[in-house]
Amino acid sequence: MSQLRSTLDFLVYDWLQGEGLTARTRYADHSRETFDAVLDTCERIAREKYAPFNRTVDTEEPRFDGEKVILPQCTYDARRAYAEAGMLAAGKDAEWGGMQLPYLVEAAANSFFACASVSMGSNLLTSANANLLLVHGTPLQKQVFAVNELEGNWAGTMALSEPQAGSSLSDISTRALPDGDGFESDPLGARYRLKGNKMWISAGDHELTENIVHLVLAKIPGPDGKLIPGVKGISLFIVPKKLVDAQGQLTGERNDVALAGLNHKLGWRGTTNTLLNFGEGKYPVRGDGGGGLDGQGAGAIGYLVGQPHEGLKCMFHMMNEARIGIGMAATMLGLAGYYASLDYARNRPQGRPVGEAGKDATRPQVRIIEHTDVKRMLLAQKAYGEGALALNLYCARLVDDGRTGTPEVAARAKLLLEVLTPICKSWPSEFCLEANSLAIQIHGGYGYTRDFPVEQYWRDNRLNMIHEGTHGIQAADLLGRKVRMQDGAGLQLLAATINATIERALQVPQLAGYANQLAQALQDVGAATKAAWATANPQEALANAVPYMQAFGHTVLAWMWLDVALVVLARDAALSAPAHAGQMGAARYFFHYELPRIGAWLQVVRQRDMTCAELPEDAF
Amino acid sequence: MSQLRSTLDFLVYDWLQGEGLTARTRYADHSRETFDAVLDTCERIAREKYAPFNRTVDTEEPRFDGEKVILPQCTYDARRAYAEAGMLAAGKDAEWGGMQLPYLVEAAANSFFACASVSMGSNLLTSANANLLLVHGTPLQKQVFAVNELEGNWAGTMALSEPQAGSSLSDISTRALPDGDGFESDPLGARYRLKGNKMWISAGDHELTENIVHLVLAKIPGPDGKLIPGVKGISLFIVPKKLVDAQGQLTGERNDVALAGLNHKLGWRGTTNTLLNFGEGKYPVRGDGGGGLDGQGAGAIGYLVGQPHEGLKCMFHMMNEARIGIGMAATMLGLAGYYASLDYARNRPQGRPVGEAGKDATRPQVRIIEHTDVKRMLLAQKAYGEGALALNLYCARLVDDGRTGTPEVAARAKLLLEVLTPICKSWPSEFCLEANSLAIQIHGGYGYTRDFPVEQYWRDNRLNMIHEGTHGIQAADLLGRKVRMQDGAGLQLLAATINATIERALQVPQLAGYANQLAQALQDVGAATKAAWATANPQEALANAVPYMQAFGHTVLAWMWLDVALVVLARDAALSAPAHAGQMGAARYFFHYELPRIGAWLQVVRQRDMTCAELPEDAF
Repeated sequence: MSQLRSTLDFLVYDWLQGEGLTARTRYADHSRETFDAVLDTCERIAREKYAPFNRTVDTEEPRFDGEKVILPQCTYDARRAYAEAGMLAAGKDAEWGGMQLPYLVEAAANSFFACASVSMGSNLLTSANANLLLVHGTPLQKQVFAVNELEGNWAGTMALSEPQAGSSLSDISTRALPDGDGFESDPLGARYRLKGNKMWISAGDHELTENIVHLVLAKIPGPDGKLIPGVKGISLFIVPKKLVDAQGQLTGERNDVALAGLNHKLGWRGTTNTLLNFGEGKYPVRGDGGGGLDGQGAGAIGYLVGQPHEGLKCMFHMMNEARIGIGMAATMLGLAGYYASLDYARNRPQGRPVGEAGKDATRPQVRIIEHTDVKRMLLAQKAYGEGALALNLYCARLVDDGRTGTPEVAARAKLLLEVLTPICKSWPSEFCLEANSLAIQIHGGYGYTRDFPVEQYWRDNRLNMIHEGTHGIQAADLLGRKVRMQDGAGLQLLAATINATIERALQVPQLAGYANQLAQALQDVGAATKAAWATANPQEALANAVPYMQAFGHTVLAWMWLDVALVVLARDAALSAPAHAGQMGAARYFFHYELPRIGAWLQVVRQRDMTCAELPEDAF
Repeated sequence: MSQLRSTLDFLVYDWLQGEGLTARTRYADHSRETFDAVLDTCERIAREKYAPFNRTVDTEEPRFDGEKVILPQCTYDARRAYAEAGMLAAGKDAEWGGMQLPYLVEAAANSFFACASVSMGSNLLTSANANLLLVHGTPLQKQVFAVNELEGNWAGTMALSEPQAGSSLSDISTRALPDGDGFESDPLGARYRLKGNKMWISAGDHELTENIVHLVLAKIPGPDGKLIPGVKGISLFIVPKKLVDAQGQLTGERNDVALAGLNHKLGWRGTTNTLLNFGEGKYPVRGDGGGGLDGQGAGAIGYLVGQPHEGLKCMFHMMNEARIGIGMAATMLGLAGYYASLDYARNRPQGRPVGEAGKDATRPQVRIIEHTDVKRMLLAQKAYGEGALALNLYCARLVDDGRTGTPEVAARAKLLLEVLTPICKSWPSEFCLEANSLAIQIHGGYGYTRDFPVEQYWRDNRLNMIHEGTHGIQAADLLGRKVRMQDGAGLQLLAATINATIERALQVPQLAGYANQLAQALQDVGAATKAAWATANPQEALANAVPYMQAFGHTVLAWMWLDVALVVLARDAALSAPAHAGQMGAARYFFHYELPRIGAWLQVVRQRDMTCAELPEDAF
C-alpha cells in the first residue's frame, strides 16, 4: 500500500492541488495535516482489517439460513473499524456529525479499502444513501434515517431494478398505495404501502447493523388505479427493514421486506446481493403507530422522499455518486493486481534474456521482470490503473468544485462532471479488468490458482461493467445525451479544458509530440461526434455508441497522462527519480500503445456503420 | 448444438472439401456417411453425457482424500462413453485399433465435447500421448502403453513443467539414472530411476482408469554426474503410475509417483491439475521384475522413449497437437458463450428501441436482441468464434495434408502449419475469452451469477492463454522463429496462400474492397516483420512480439473470413438464407470493426518501440 500512498499523494497534492481546497470556507478547518491523518487512518484500517480477509470473503460467501444472512466475522470487524473512523460521514456537514472533508480526500481515503478488499464493505452505499436523504429528505427523515446511517447504526441500500425490468426503470412495477386516510400526516413522511420485487439489491439483507434503510423506487397509481407508464410515474420511498418511531427507535416490529434469495456471483462476493420481496406478507405489519390501517393496504411501509413522481431525479443524485464509486472500485482492483503482479515479477526467477546473453543455460535464471514482455504487461497495468486513478480523483475534485467553487467554477465543474461521469465509470471497468487479466498472465499457471490473489481481482472486477448502469447504458448516455446537451456545451467545455493542457504541453519539448497527437485525437472525436449525428437519426448515431465511448475514454485518459506528465516534469526530478521515470514511462506507453487504438473505434462511428444493426435476427 | 453442427458441416464439407479426403488411400474406407456417423455420435454423447454436467464438474472440483482423487460420477460416465465410441483412437492406424479418421473430422467431432464441457474430459491428452508413442516408441512400448491408452484402459499425461522452471524447460532438474547394470535390456525400454517434481500436470492423478502413463521429461546426468545445462540434456521417459510387465499386465506394485497436491483453479475444474513427486520414496519400488536393483537407484521407474537427450524433440510432437487442441478448446468455449447469450438475447424482454419508437412506454418491452448494441456483442462473438473455428479446422486439414498429401502438398502443409500453430493456439485463447466476456455482458446482472453458464465459460477460457505455452511464448515463437525459418519461406508461403484468396476475391464485386483491405494488411505485416528485424537485434525485434502476434492473428482471421465468404457467395444462397446472411455479416463485421485494429499493434513493432524494454525496474 505504500506505493498507492505515494501515488495518491502525488495526484491529490502535487497534481490536483488538493491542499488549496482548505482556502474554501467549507474546508477551512482542514489542513494538509488533517487530510494526511485521514489517509493514514484509512491506510491502516485497510491494511489491518480488510486486506488480510479478502480471500475469506470470497470463499465464505454470504449464505441464508432461512432467517438470517450469515457473513464472516471479518466483515463485522471491518465495518466497525470503518464506521468508528467516522468515514461514513467523512464528507458530510458538521451539523450531521460529518468531517466536512473534501470529496477528493474522501475518495482518496476510500481507495485504500477498495484496493484491500473491494467487496467487503458496502459502506459507500450507506454513505450515498444518507447523502441523498440529506439533500432530499425532510428534517426528520434526515435526523432519523440519515444520521443513524452516518453514525454506523444502520446501513443503506438503493433498490431500483426488478427482475422483469433490469436496467429499464420505466418498466418497474412495484406499486405504492397511500396507507389509509391519514397517510400524509405521518411525521416520518407521507406513508405508503409498497408491493413488488427488487432484484440485484446490494447489501439488501444482513445482520451487520441493527436496521437497514432501503431507498426504493415505486410507482403510485393514478386516479384510474393504473401505473403511469414510463419513468415519470416513479416515486422514491424510504422502506426500513425494521419499523421505527419518530425518535428513530426501533418499534420492535419488522417491516414486510423479505429476503427472497441471494444471488451467487462470480466475484464481489463479500457483499450480499439480494432479491427482496416488498409486501408479500411474510412479515405482515399489523400496526405502525400512525394513521389508520384499512386492511386493504397491506404491504411494506414506506415513507415518501421528495415529491411524488420525482423519485428518479432524487435517485440519480445517488446513482451518479455510485457510478464514480464503481469507477474507483474498478480502478483499485486494477492497481491491486498491478501491485501483486509487480511483486511476483520482481521475485520469480524464470528463463533467460532474449539474444546471445540468454543462450548460456549454465547461467542462473533471471527474474521475470527482466523480460520485456513482462515489463510490457506491467507498464500497461500501470498506465491503466494510475491513469484511471487520476481520472477518478480529477472527477472527485470536480465534485468539490461543484459544491464549493465560485459560481462560475461550480457551473463549469458540474458540466464537465456530467460529460466525464460515463467515462469515469466505464473506462476503468473495461481497462482495469484488462489489467487484471494481464496480472494473471504475468503469474503464469500460478495466476489462475486460488493461491494467488489476482484471479479474484479479475473476477471481482467483472461486475463493474454491469452494475450501476451497463457499458451500453453509459455509452448511450455519453453519445446520446451528454455530448449533445445544451447544444454541445459540455463537449465544448471538455475540449477547451483538454486544449489548455495541450497548449501547455506544446511548450515542453519532451511533450510537444504527444500534445499534437492528443490534439488530433480530440479533433477525431469531435468529427466522429458530428458524423454520428449528421443524419439526426438516433438509430444510426447510437449504433456504435460503445466504440465511441472507448475512443472517447482513451482520449480522456491520454489527456490525463499528458496533464500528469506536465506536473511530473515540473517537479524536481532528483527528488523521486524512479517514480518520475515510472510516470513518464506510463505516459509514453499510453501515447505509443493505447491512443492509436482510437482509429479503429472511431471509423465505424464516423461511417455510421450499420453492420450490426441491420443483421436480421435469424442470421445470428 | 444444432447450430454448431450446421456450422461444422459447412466448414468441413463446403469450405474445406473434407469429403475429398476419402480419395486418399489412408481414408479410402471412409465416406461422407462414415464421417457424419462420427459427428452424429459425438454430438449425441456430448449432449447426453457432457453438457448436463458442465456445472457439476465446476462445483464439485477434484479433491484428494489422502489416498485417492475424488471426481464426480458424471466424469466417469462421460469418459466411458467417449472411450467406447472409439474416439481415443479415432485418427490412429487400423493396425492399432484406430478408425483412420482424418484429423479434420476428428477435430470437428471433438469440438462437440469442448463446447459441452471443456474440462470434463482429458481425453485429448491421452490420445496425444498414445500418438507420440506410436511415432517414437518401441514396438513393445506401442503394444503395452499406447494400445492400452487407445482402448481406454489407461490414461496419459505429459509431464514437462517443474515448480522452479515453469516454461523454461532448460531448467528442469528431474534426473534419471540408469537402473542397475542390466538397465538397457528391459523389454519395455532402457530402465531408469527418476527423481524430481512436476508441476501443472493435467489429469496427473485420478481413478478414472486402472493406470496412468506419464510421459516425463528428465535429464540423464553426464559422466561427471552433473546434469547437462539447457534443453539438450533432456530425455523422455514413460513412467507408469502402476508397474506393468512386458505383457501389459499390472504387476500389483505401485510405481513411486506420488500426488503432492492438487492445484485449485479459477476454471477448467473438471480436469485434475497436479503437482507430482517422482521417486520421493512414498511408494518405494522393491522389485520390478527386471534388471538388478542396486539400492542406490531408488526412484520412480521410467522407460526411455527414443534416444537419450532427444526427449524434447519427441515431446514437441505432442505439444504441437496439444496447442491446436487448446486453440480448439478456446474456440468452443467462445462459441458456447455465443450460443448461450444468443438464446438469452432472443428471449429476454427489456427496454425499447432507440428513437421515437422507443419513447412510448405503454408499448411492451422488446427482446434485447432488438437492441443494436446487443447485436454488436453477438456479432463480435460470432465473428470471433466461427472465425477461430475456421482457422482451427483449416489447420486440422493441414495436418491431414501433411500426413497423406503428395510430397509437395505435404511439405507445403507442414510448413504452413508451423507458421500458423502459434496463431491457432493464441488467437482463440485471447479473442474467444473476449467473446465470453461479451456473453456475460449481454446477460447483464444474470451473467455474473452462477445460475447462467456464461461466467463459467469465461473462467474456463482464462487458462488457455497460459497453458501449453503462454501468449508470450507463442509470440516469441512466431516472430523469433516461425516467420524467419528457412529464410522466411514459411511467411512467404502464407503470404502466397493468402494472396490466392485475395486474387479470387478481387473478382467478386461484393468482396473486392475487403480483398484490397486484406492485401494492405498483409503488406503491413510483412513490412513490420522486416522493420522488427532491421537491426538484427533480437531484443529490439521481439520487444513487441505480442502486439505483432495480435496483428498477425487478426490478418489471418480476416483471410479466413474472406475465404469463407467466397464459398458462401458461391453457394446457392436461397438454400440457407439466414446462415448465409449471418456468415456474410460476420465477415463484414471482421473487416469493419476488427482488421483496422492492426494499425495500433503494428506501429510499435515497426518502430521497434523500446518504451517497455527500457523502463528501469525501480520505475514500476
